[in-house]
Amino acid sequence: MRHMSADLLIKNVRPMGGEPVDVLVRDGFIQQMTPGIMPAGATLTVLDGRNRLMLPGLVNAHAHVDKNLLGLPWRKNQVLGSRIRDFVDHERHVRRELNLSARTQASRQVRAAVATGTTHIRSHVDIDTDAGLAHFEGVMATRDELKDVVTMQLVAFPQSGMLVRAGTVELLEEAVKMGAECVGGLDPSTVDRDPVRHLDVIFDIADRHGVEVDVHLHEPGMLGAFAVELIAERTRALGMQGRVTISHVFCLGMIDDGYLGMLTELLLENRITIMSLGSGVSQFPPIRRLHDAGVTLCTGTDGVRDTWGPYNSVDMLERVKMLGYRSGHRRDEDIEMLLHIATHGGAKVMGDGDYGLREGGRADFVVVAGDAPAEAIIERPPRTFVVKAGRVVAADGKYVPA
Amino acid sequence: MRHMSADLLIKNVRPMGGEPVDVLVRDGFIQQMTPGIMPAGATLTVLDGRNRLMLPGLVNAHAHVDKNLLGLPWRKNQVLGSRIRDFVDHERHVRRELNLSARTQASRQVRAAVATGTTHIRSHVDIDTDAGLAHFEGVMATRDELKDVVTMQLVAFPQSGMLVRAGTVELLEEAVKMGAECVGGLDPSTVDRDPVRHLDVIFDIADRHGVEVDVHLHEPGMLGAFAVELIAERTRALGMQGRVTISHVFCLGMIDDGYLGMLTELLLENRITIMSLGSGVSQFPPIRRLHDAGVTLCTGTDGVRDTWGPYNSVDMLERVKMLGYRSGHRRDEDIEMLLHIATHGGAKVMGDGDYGLREGGRADFVVVAGDAPAEAIIERPPRTFVVKAGRVVAADGKYVPA
Repeated sequence: MRHMSADLLIKNVRPMGGEPVDVLVRDGFIQQMTPGIMPAGATLTVLDGRNRLMLPGLVNAHAHVDKNLLGLPWRKNQVLGSRIRDFVDHERHVRRELNLSARTQASRQVRAAVATGTTHIRSHVDIDTDAGLAHFEGVMATRDELKDVVTMQLVAFPQSGMLVRAGTVELLEEAVKMGAECVGGLDPSTVDRDPVRHLDVIFDIADRHGVEVDVHLHEPGMLGAFAVELIAERTRALGMQGRVTISHVFCLGMIDDGYLGMLTELLLENRITIMSLGSGVSQFPPIRRLHDAGVTLCTGTDGVRDTWGPYNSVDMLERVKMLGYRSGHRRDEDIEMLLHIATHGGAKVMGDGDYGLREGGRADFVVVAGDAPAEAIIERPPRTFVVKAGRVVAADGKYVPA
Repeated sequence: MRHMSADLLIKNVRPMGGEPVDVLVRDGFIQQMTPGIMPAGATLTVLDGRNRLMLPGLVNAHAHVDKNLLGLPWRKNQVLGSRIRDFVDHERHVRRELNLSARTQASRQVRAAVATGTTHIRSHVDIDTDAGLAHFEGVMATRDELKDVVTMQLVAFPQSGMLVRAGTVELLEEAVKMGAECVGGLDPSTVDRDPVRHLDVIFDIADRHGVEVDVHLHEPGMLGAFAVELIAERTRALGMQGRVTISHVFCLGMIDDGYLGMLTELLLENRITIMSLGSGVSQFPPIRRLHDAGVTLCTGTDGVRDTWGPYNSVDMLERVKMLGYRSGHRRDEDIEMLLHIATHGGAKVMGDGDYGLREGGRADFVVVAGDAPAEAIIERPPRTFVVKAGRVVAADGKYVPA
């Protein structure tokens, strides 16, 4: 049964920076968006939007909510090495040492994210033969606890490798049975040492259980590009068009123009989504070009305040800023394209047909100060209101408990 | 005559995140830094540092305080083209259209910067045959007005080109006579079309007037590297070792290892400083490698909220974060190296021998929440106190007027 909420009238907000309107919300959905709506009804809450921006709820389509260190004292990062494996081994060690609760950490991160306007999160959750399903169970509990506050999807993610750690495949399948919407993969050649078998196993689980696929692909250049081809071939063979995401895919920023054009065709034919959050150092997919070609794109925070590094924050507006900085986008229209990816792009990937700032759309939105969307992205003031399914879940930058 | 200030005792701060001390300031200088200092003297102001971090004053060694749009409504960026010249022409047009006062804009930026802990600024100031010396006079007035709040150096900067606009050389020399500490240059080949003559003119002005040189060098690859050689040759010929800075120098991130080693030797022999603030898109100098080789490095904000693009902020801690992100530095010790560049590196370039968190050093410092310096850089909370020459110039994130 859907969570019921009191009706809401937000006066004087500017959707996407346009002309001011009032927004009437009934039973969790936007019923009317026009100027001059008069309050009516005893249960109606009226809020003053103060002529601020109204943006659709922010969609974090790539999080790792189980592995943050939020709420703990600053931990000096002294990780040695620079390979994915170095970071993964270091992380498993730290998580054991600190005896972290995935449920507690996930709950902290989700609340902090909601306070910044995030209404949707797809989170990868580490599953390995050390921790078993403990992290996954913790995040499942948080998802259930906060189901009226945020829409969550979970990816059963073999962070420590799959084929290289016997028993992992079975754990991934168990997580899917428990409720994961996606099965994840990780660098099929550089980590798992067998790209064909890695992808066959993942797609087989997805096919048998009717779930989606979301693969972390950090592999550079032609090695990564070959994995993109293998993923596209399996997507087509199993009729999984529109149900496969490749995350990071740095290789798309490293290959020549002609080959990029060919891979873009494969992505379009198989309706494969590209998740990119840029990168501080690595090349990454050419966002504008893929967007203009019609590829579905989404973005996310990646892990925040974890053992990997300090630079990511829970705030999706900050992600848009960093992605714009790295993409060299200075003009407002280009920055708004990135905001579109961080909102509508992510909502499409998460299959939310009720999403959007429109009459009939679910009342998932953010009110924030700023003359234009780009100003809010650059300045990132505390969010005035965050509304999820018609309920105010954050105000003045603070999470509002139910 | 030096500005006199009341004496100050700051209790319980942790210099660079170390053990807590009390800090006694007399006549603008740090007299004592030890635990357990007892208050004494009728004019002594006692402040509670709340066990927070104490950092030396932040040094913005590359600003453009005359050209921001702070305090104005958000201006949608619709600049066309991507060459330096496109941005320069667009900017001159906007400045005329808005009829901006360099003095007012500079004053806004400096106050905002002081509120984030900046105690030193080297600012390039646009000088061209349209505006003449108007921007320079405006920034000179702001420098004079705020001389007790911030240490400022000015660079007479030919933003629109020098040889290509007759009359510019004479204006640069006039600015030097009026008080600029440095003469600036800009892309001697790509903008000014004659690298040898461009640099000869600039070094001649510097040599005759006893001022320093600070050249904007955006030129890529071997073209930029050749300009570095020309700059080093003139530095040696005129005995200007330790008095020349090259800013941006993207080319140092684009050449092969062997040639980089050779140029590094030239920089060391001539004690040439490299100013790098990274770049969102371009390659840029390898900071760690140059630092370890002994090259003096500094960093800055570049122009903030101007017609060039939206990504820079007045907060030097944010600059350190962005530079760390782009350099791939995840470990605390690497992030602290960047903070060193943003503090001690800049103070060295600006020739401030009184700088530093030490007994006998001038009382220019920042108190900010955080367990470790890296945490303050990542979280950037409002600065608890900013102290300049012994006076509290900002508190709780707000500028404190004299």
